Amino acid sequence: MLQTIKKIGVLTSGGDAPGMNAAIRSVVRACAFHDIKCYGIYRGYEGMIDGDFVEMDARSVKGIINKGGTVLKSARSNKFRTKEGRQIAYDKLREAGIDAFVVIGGDGSFTGAMIFNQEFNFPVMGIPGTIDNDIYGTTHTLGYDTALNTVVDVIDKIRDTASSHNRLFFIEVMGRDVGHIALNVGIGAGAEEILIPEEDLGLDRLVESLRRSKASGKSSSIVIVAEGDKIGKSVFELKDYVDENMAEYEVRVSVLGHMQRGGSPSCFDRVLASRMGVKAVESLITGKSNYMVGIKNDVMDLTPFDQAVKGKSKINMELLRVSDIMSI
Amino acid sequence: MLQTIKKIGVLTSGGDAPGMNAAIRSVVRACAFHDIKCYGIYRGYEGMIDGDFVEMDARSVKGIINKGGTVLKSARSNKFRTKEGRQIAYDKLREAGIDAFVVIGGDGSFTGAMIFNQEFNFPVMGIPGTIDNDIYGTTHTLGYDTALNTVVDVIDKIRDTASSHNRLFFIEVMGRDVGHIALNVGIGAGAEEILIPEEDLGLDRLVESLRRSKASGKSSSIVIVAEGDKIGKSVFELKDYVDENMAEYEVRVSVLGHMQRGGSPSCFDRVLASRMGVKAVESLITGKSNYMVGIKNDVMDLTPFDQAVKGKSKINMELLRVSDIMSI
Amino acid sequence: MLQTIKKIGVLTSGGDAPGMNAAIRSVVRACAFHDIKCYGIYRGYEGMIDGDFVEMDARSVKGIINKGGTVLKSARSNKFRTKEGRQIAYDKLREAGIDAFVVIGGDGSFTGAMIFNQEFNFPVMGIPGTIDNDIYGTTHTLGYDTALNTVVDVIDKIRDTASSHNRLFFIEVMGRDVGHIALNVGIGAGAEEILIPEEDLGLDRLVESLRRSKASGKSSSIVIVAEGDKIGKSVFELKDYVDENMAEYEVRVSVLGHMQRGGSPSCFDRVLASRMGVKAVESLITGKSNYMVGIKNDVMDLTPFDQAVKGKSKINMELLRVSDIMSI
Amino acid sequence: MLQTIKKIGVLTSGGDAPGMNAAIRSVVRACAFHDIKCYGIYRGYEGMIDGDFVEMDARSVKGIINKGGTVLKSARSNKFRTKEGRQIAYDKLREAGIDAFVVIGGDGSFTGAMIFNQEFNFPVMGIPGTIDNDIYGTTHTLGYDTALNTVVDVIDKIRDTASSHNRLFFIEVMGRDVGHIALNVGIGAGAEEILIPEEDLGLDRLVESLRRSKASGKSSSIVIVAEGDKIGKSVFELKDYVDENMAEYEVRVSVLGHMQRGGSPSCFDRVLASRMGVKAVESLITGKSNYMVGIKNDVMDLTPFDQAVKGKSKINMELLRVSDIMSI
Repeated sequence: MLQTIKKIGVLTSGGDAPGMNAAIRSVVRACAFHDIKCYGIYRGYEGMIDGDFVEMDARSVKGIINKGGTVLKSARSNKFRTKEGRQIAYDKLREAGIDAFVVIGGDGSFTGAMIFNQEFNFPVMGIPGTIDNDIYGTTHTLGYDTALNTVVDVIDKIRDTASSHNRLFFIEVMGRDVGHIALNVGIGAGAEEILIPEEDLGLDRLVESLRRSKASGKSSSIVIVAEGDKIGKSVFELKDYVDENMAEYEVRVSVLGHMQRGGSPSCFDRVLASRMGVKAVESLITGKSNYMVGIKNDVMDLTPFDQAVKGKSKINMELLRVSDIMSI
Repeated sequence: MLQTIKKIGVLTSGGDAPGMNAAIRSVVRACAFHDIKCYGIYRGYEGMIDGDFVEMDARSVKGIINKGGTVLKSARSNKFRTKEGRQIAYDKLREAGIDAFVVIGGDGSFTGAMIFNQEFNFPVMGIPGTIDNDIYGTTHTLGYDTALNTVVDVIDKIRDTASSHNRLFFIEVMGRDVGHIALNVGIGAGAEEILIPEEDLGLDRLVESLRRSKASGKSSSIVIVAEGDKIGKSVFELKDYVDENMAEYEVRVSVLGHMQRGGSPSCFDRVLASRMGVKAVESLITGKSNYMVGIKNDVMDLTPFDQAVKGKSKINMELLRVSDIMSI
Repeated sequence: MLQTIKKIGVLTSGGDAPGMNAAIRSVVRACAFHDIKCYGIYRGYEGMIDGDFVEMDARSVKGIINKGGTVLKSARSNKFRTKEGRQIAYDKLREAGIDAFVVIGGDGSFTGAMIFNQEFNFPVMGIPGTIDNDIYGTTHTLGYDTALNTVVDVIDKIRDTASSHNRLFFIEVMGRDVGHIALNVGIGAGAEEILIPEEDLGLDRLVESLRRSKASGKSSSIVIVAEGDKIGKSVFELKDYVDENMAEYEVRVSVLGHMQRGGSPSCFDRVLASRMGVKAVESLITGKSNYMVGIKNDVMDLTPFDQAVKGKSKINMELLRVSDIMSI
Repeated sequence: MLQTIKKIGVLTSGGDAPGMNAAIRSVVRACAFHDIKCYGIYRGYEGMIDGDFVEMDARSVKGIINKGGTVLKSARSNKFRTKEGRQIAYDKLREAGIDAFVVIGGDGSFTGAMIFNQEFNFPVMGIPGTIDNDIYGTTHTLGYDTALNTVVDVIDKIRDTASSHNRLFFIEVMGRDVGHIALNVGIGAGAEEILIPEEDLGLDRLVESLRRSKASGKSSSIVIVAEGDKIGKSVFELKDYVDENMAEYEVRVSVLGHMQRGGSPSCFDRVLASRMGVKAVESLITGKSNYMVGIKNDVMDLTPFDQAVKGKSKINMELLRVSDIMSI
């Protein structure tokens, strides 16, 4: 028999991303729409263990759809990795009468939810929130589209100064495991080369490409480097290498860092968050559990947590080719 | 036998949209990559008739990927609607040795290209560029994503003042035939109601909805109105109606207008433009003609002009429901 | 003997402006710094009459420095214009133990404060908050610098489309009595002509100037029109006039409206607000009353309310000349 | 007898800054207005020595007022530091008939102009363009206001993530010799502490201040560090120090770097650039030479190069106090 859901908790976990607040708002309002009580759980699983809950109604999420970060705050929780920690979390949820939760986060957060579900048969749903877009089962994670615009906007500024001085810039962007951000902002910002975790361009080809670019009349160049690029050099090491091997360039480095995570979400991310929150709540209501909400071909979709966690998000290889053609 | 393409012309036609410059750049560079000469055709079909061509190489499109508007300028051409006009255009193209062209624009521009192709068996390809996203055969037109962000950003600003004064705002956004912009920015900006060409909400339901919203404790409200909304009232008439029928609100109106067309393209639009330009050029090279390049499920796609022109872009009805839930 | 101030109220009144939240934050924190209790008064003088007060400590203004609008909300109050209304307001303040207030607003708000001070000998200070910069006694009002950037940014977008189509745009910006915004954004956005309340350019000279500009090779033009421009024509009437008298232009109109009031304050406005809040609180502490805080030559300054209200903010005539030269 | 100026050169030199293009435009149009020919000199003094000149008329600076960087490009020139280099530059200018120039740049560029003037009695004027605002004789340099907004905008984004995770961020901003940027963005972004070249806060006081802030209930903190801060520690060393001495914080670092130089100029910088260009040209016309144009109390002003170069731009000490109060 289908257990009726009466109180849903919502938390954000792991690294924050633009659109998390819009997703919280959506979960809260979808609950209100379906006459379900909703509780905000602060500081991710850490706050779950501490019983740091607060009831939220439709009005309590007013004015947050366009705010970066997460009003529920986020944290990584070592305690939740232990059986004891999860037991306390379960007790706290039960105490508060919460009978299901939606976790907004990434791979690690979903793994935690999956184990929790297995141990306590507790209904859980996930919403993918991370700027890296490194999650299987959805073409877009919350915050990814916003991050692309944030990064492209910053690189446009750096290009102003690069092209005024005929300089070469190595710009490090986020992406430890996948090159989505690097690849798209590389094309979007007109980069000369893009170094990603998926492909080893090789230092020689990089230098050769920069030489060809200089010869073709380009006065300045931007090279985008994902954190986890395959060459395995940091942007600073790349600078040193080029300094030694290419006298023709004055090289500069920029590490974009945490600013990439912040800012007001793009329209796309706000709409996506709104859709995902509704889908998560309505999936729980209809008895589903242990899934991640995703978007595929502009349709809401569910992927079992174990697949979402095991699967690998793949870059679009067409983009590598487009990038090559564009940097002619 | 396949006729070899040696010189490709590129033009922008109809209303301008962010990403057109990125598409021009892509066409030019894809030509350079394939050792094809490329000519910019100024002021759309009008400039084609005037023979207003200029050769463009890879360097001549430097620094335009992030610029709004179109460096080739755009225009509507009455002459091109006549057989005589098109004959002159054909003669001018032949004179310059141009043996194919890519037109970046909307429905009207594609119709022109299709007729031109029929009359002269001249290879043509289209790239959909319009903020309205009202073209069949592609899930996204160039400029649409940028416009969503531009509009949401402006509505965020209006909301600052709306919520400081407990006001109701009617905001008119673009969309004569389809409600894509209205629907998405409505959700993205947290609008109370969204009036679109596809659905007749009815004035009574609008007033009722606003009353319910006031009763629920909301202090300010935003109603998004697409230019071509089904109720058939202008934002000014809507204001008058509410002024007369709802004493509880102080009503204001804002018509966003042409600013929606401008601005630096989003990362999405820059990448889309880059992909579309490559696809258009390479399709011409492989002997294809009379198609519009589109994107479907993140894959480049071709739609015959006659289908693109006859078909209708449809809104996602799920969004209407999400909007209802979000405005609880 | 100097009466010791123990509780200070703070309110925002009249039209909202970016920087008001930063000023509220500053008043609250300056109070906390000096061990004075601070109360937020909601909805301007209307909330004062209703006794709508809430105690605010340093943490309660967290995260608002960069938000547009006003968290205390604003309103116009007819009741406060009556002796009875003000008596109730006084009683409510006394009841709550509030013994001074800082009002953030414009001319009308200061007049109210001045009368209130005369009637009840109640210590009051004013902080000028309005995007129009139309207040005597300060070179900058809160929100003015932000509005200039907001407007210039929008006009940049309109110019993208204007120059793509060889169009003439009449753009209406705020400024009923003074042309500060029009004059500065006119220069900043490279406008052809600027119509302000201070000067009657005359329709003939406008048309002549536009003709000269066309002849000089300009393909598109922007004319900035302050709401209260001296010619006395609305932007729509101007369009009609030019449509009739200048066949060479395709004319469009844009009324920017309320978006000009919103948005995150510029760095300048945030710093100015922070300085003004401190100055207002410390002036009250040292026994001053009935003054408006202002900035002159980058130094904080006090102007008696009666002078601030009677005086007139003047535009910098040098800018008119610069504008003429720039539009050659 | 006053030598008539017939051809004026304009160049940008040293680090680029937003507003440089607006200043170039202004110099070119002021020349056009006064019927003087104007030549753009590429790549600063380096291009002067190479005779890299191009004639510019009013139309050739179209559409650049809102662009970051410099269309004339900039460079540092070692050759111009030699007598021989300057002699060649002089010969090239004479050859082209250029009889005066306006240099847009910083201290070093003015020193070069001053020496050149002494050696060849060649009329020169300077316009201060640098985001650091570190030049004596003007309250604002070109680009400074824009940089403040750029930086504050980025810190707002970092704060989104900082406050979602209860983190402490050390953010390095530009300012080797003066703390203008650090001080203003520190107040504007609500920083906990601001480390500037002018004042040695001391590591102990920093730690103490952070402890007090944590105790007062603040969950996250931002510390702004000017490149040339007096403590003499890099942001990375500061992080290490706090990591060792304050277990209560999770510390992160962000070095903003070159993005601070780019971007579309603020309205203030565009207007300032327009005014300065006119002033520079008209000063040359009236026979003045060897001055830097500046702004003081919103009035255009001239400062002899030797004073501009020797003098020191001072921070406003009131801001230090305001910052202390705001971070309570």
